[in-house]
Amino acid sequence: MTFITLTTDFGTRQGSHTVLHGAIYGIAPDAVITDLSHEITPQDIREANFVVNNSAFFFPDGTVHVIVVDPGVGTERRAIAARIGSHYFVAPDNGVLSACLRRADEMGWSTEFVDLDKPEYWLTNVTNTFHGRDLFAPVGAHLGAGVSLGDLGSAMTDPILMPLWEATQHDDGSVSGEVIYIDDFGNAICSILPDEIAHLPVPNGVKVELGGATIDGMVRTFGDSEYGTDTLIALWDSSGYLLVSENNGTGGKVIQPCPGDRVTVRSQ
Amino acid sequence: MTFITLTTDFGTRQGSHTVLHGAIYGIAPDAVITDLSHEITPQDIREANFVVNNSAFFFPDGTVHVIVVDPGVGTERRAIAARIGSHYFVAPDNGVLSACLRRADEMGWSTEFVDLDKPEYWLTNVTNTFHGRDLFAPVGAHLGAGVSLGDLGSAMTDPILMPLWEATQHDDGSVSGEVIYIDDFGNAICSILPDEIAHLPVPNGVKVELGGATIDGMVRTFGDSEYGTDTLIALWDSSGYLLVSENNGTGGKVIQPCPGDRVTVRSQ
Amino acid sequence: MTFITLTTDFGTRQGSHTVLHGAIYGIAPDAVITDLSHEITPQDIREANFVVNNSAFFFPDGTVHVIVVDPGVGTERRAIAARIGSHYFVAPDNGVLSACLRRADEMGWSTEFVDLDKPEYWLTNVTNTFHGRDLFAPVGAHLGAGVSLGDLGSAMTDPILMPLWEATQHDDGSVSGEVIYIDDFGNAICSILPDEIAHLPVPNGVKVELGGATIDGMVRTFGDSEYGTDTLIALWDSSGYLLVSENNGTGGKVIQPCPGDRVTVRSQ
Repeated sequence: MTFITLTTDFGTRQGSHTVLHGAIYGIAPDAVITDLSHEITPQDIREANFVVNNSAFFFPDGTVHVIVVDPGVGTERRAIAARIGSHYFVAPDNGVLSACLRRADEMGWSTEFVDLDKPEYWLTNVTNTFHGRDLFAPVGAHLGAGVSLGDLGSAMTDPILMPLWEATQHDDGSVSGEVIYIDDFGNAICSILPDEIAHLPVPNGVKVELGGATIDGMVRTFGDSEYGTDTLIALWDSSGYLLVSENNGTGGKVIQPCPGDRVTVRSQ
Repeated sequence: MTFITLTTDFGTRQGSHTVLHGAIYGIAPDAVITDLSHEITPQDIREANFVVNNSAFFFPDGTVHVIVVDPGVGTERRAIAARIGSHYFVAPDNGVLSACLRRADEMGWSTEFVDLDKPEYWLTNVTNTFHGRDLFAPVGAHLGAGVSLGDLGSAMTDPILMPLWEATQHDDGSVSGEVIYIDDFGNAICSILPDEIAHLPVPNGVKVELGGATIDGMVRTFGDSEYGTDTLIALWDSSGYLLVSENNGTGGKVIQPCPGDRVTVRSQ
Repeated sequence: MTFITLTTDFGTRQGSHTVLHGAIYGIAPDAVITDLSHEITPQDIREANFVVNNSAFFFPDGTVHVIVVDPGVGTERRAIAARIGSHYFVAPDNGVLSACLRRADEMGWSTEFVDLDKPEYWLTNVTNTFHGRDLFAPVGAHLGAGVSLGDLGSAMTDPILMPLWEATQHDDGSVSGEVIYIDDFGNAICSILPDEIAHLPVPNGVKVELGGATIDGMVRTFGDSEYGTDTLIALWDSSGYLLVSENNGTGGKVIQPCPGDRVTVRSQ
């Protein structure tokens, strides 16, 4: 089986994302394509980092992940393909793989990169504006169909990395991070992991501060809270990160968090 | 062929729903997955009842329908799998199968249920917040890959049922129901079926009352109306239910119906 | 491989579009289905023309494209199937294939049409309101499963055509067209092709007028512009047409273009 996922900022209304499907089927007719997300905020490479890293590695080993969030399309930026652990990625070289590469570092996975400089694996006519169709999807399809990574381009070792969300411990023991993503429930996913606040009296003895609000203690799960429905709660998200939510996961009404907002956890 | 459908309230922007795809492919690589809907109003079990029941049974016999609308995730609520007629379902035991079970009653289909208490069919690490990935998708994949229902858990006979929409006949012969769902055209789908108003002079001699508006008579189809484009019409929806629509299916502007609003059909 | 694409105005929230999936799998279990778009503006046949024509021909030869944008459902309008070049189409006979047929004319492709008058290829019970499920999807599945076009209905030669977007050259050499579509980035796709303004001093010597704004010159690609982020730019879209965009493809804020708005290109 050849599994290929697609992540773009095209939206799904115009159908342009299905041009990638068509281009892939023309090269790898037995590919099984999953639309990972086509609703990345336009040109938001940082958000694409979060979304791809959160879902990609749950696919089977050998899956090819094609990412087209590409504000630099048609300029001199490189197009690259990568092996990160047992998964493959095809993307513009604009930092969009940074979160997956940080994961590889943490997990001790090996990585390989190629600069996609072999036009024989692209569509015949490459436009200046749609490298998704003309280059990334065809290269992903060839990878899926069995072409080896090394055949697709010249080896390279310097993919562009971008600064990512992180957590910082302060002198008073408090830990601050930032809102990474607002999910479709309106929950704020925050850049703090359990290990990073293990020295604090989690769950009941901490307070979580975000956007002027303070939450006393963390709960175990959405349905495990005694709070009313308009009250903010903090808990561990399935992504591993700290989540700030209105009770029952319909958050976003009490405070209006945005990506980049500061969140702090400290002792009560 | 192994057909699996997914219904959740995750939205499609974050890509979390594709984690279910990945988890399924890891267990049942030849599964054919259909995203039935990921846009259930968050935690709206009643809406999920309507959406799943409307589409699921058009899939081939043996299809496995995985439903993750789960406000009680991480609490003591059971996870269940069911056979309803010739279709399989995997879901939290929170009433989300009630409409499909009412259909089974009406059609005389047999049913079977198991309490999903066999962790060997789940992912290794089950979180408190994402049973879709950790439990429901893997169980659905095992069902699709040929594990029998009875092997997935302990037999049970008491799935939770929730009250559903219905129609009531009054002493004066009028019949009232409620708005079940507002579709993407803004049409109101109402809980009244043809048999339930067969004693009334359908189509031309009835009036339909909803939200302060009165519609004289029913039409046969959207394009079959002589009304202007701002006029409300009533007709039979493809789902079988009474539909109230602005002419040509671009409804929702004259009145602003909501799920739960009362609708009445009576003689003119 | 049997590739089938679906284009409708159903939206994806209610799940009705997956009834088409189910109906197809029941007839052609090995079909590979792609949701081309289910977000056509309700009943907007002209928009469906644009969307389908832009993506359909990137699929492999033999792909079957099912289109259900059907304001006349249940009236006397015909249902048709067509071969346009090496692709198949199943749709209401309401002009929705006009853009694909104009392409066939331009490319010199042959075409064939049948009036879908053979109920043995439909579902058993055809409703007045859901021919997508009852007729178009089953016919598409039979085509995909190997039934020949001629067996599905009676040959015909007069599919309905609708007027489409075009470009007009004026006495002063300027060329005017119209906005065809606003994409998910807010960019305006305009009905002017490179050949149609080849007599003008493209790229630097032209000005593009739209909605009261004037853009001096065209750029090569989104990232190739020196303009600020609130400035309008004009360039060639991957669809081939003239695109008016705010810099970096996050347009739609400076002017609020709508389909049908006039756009003009002239010498500076």
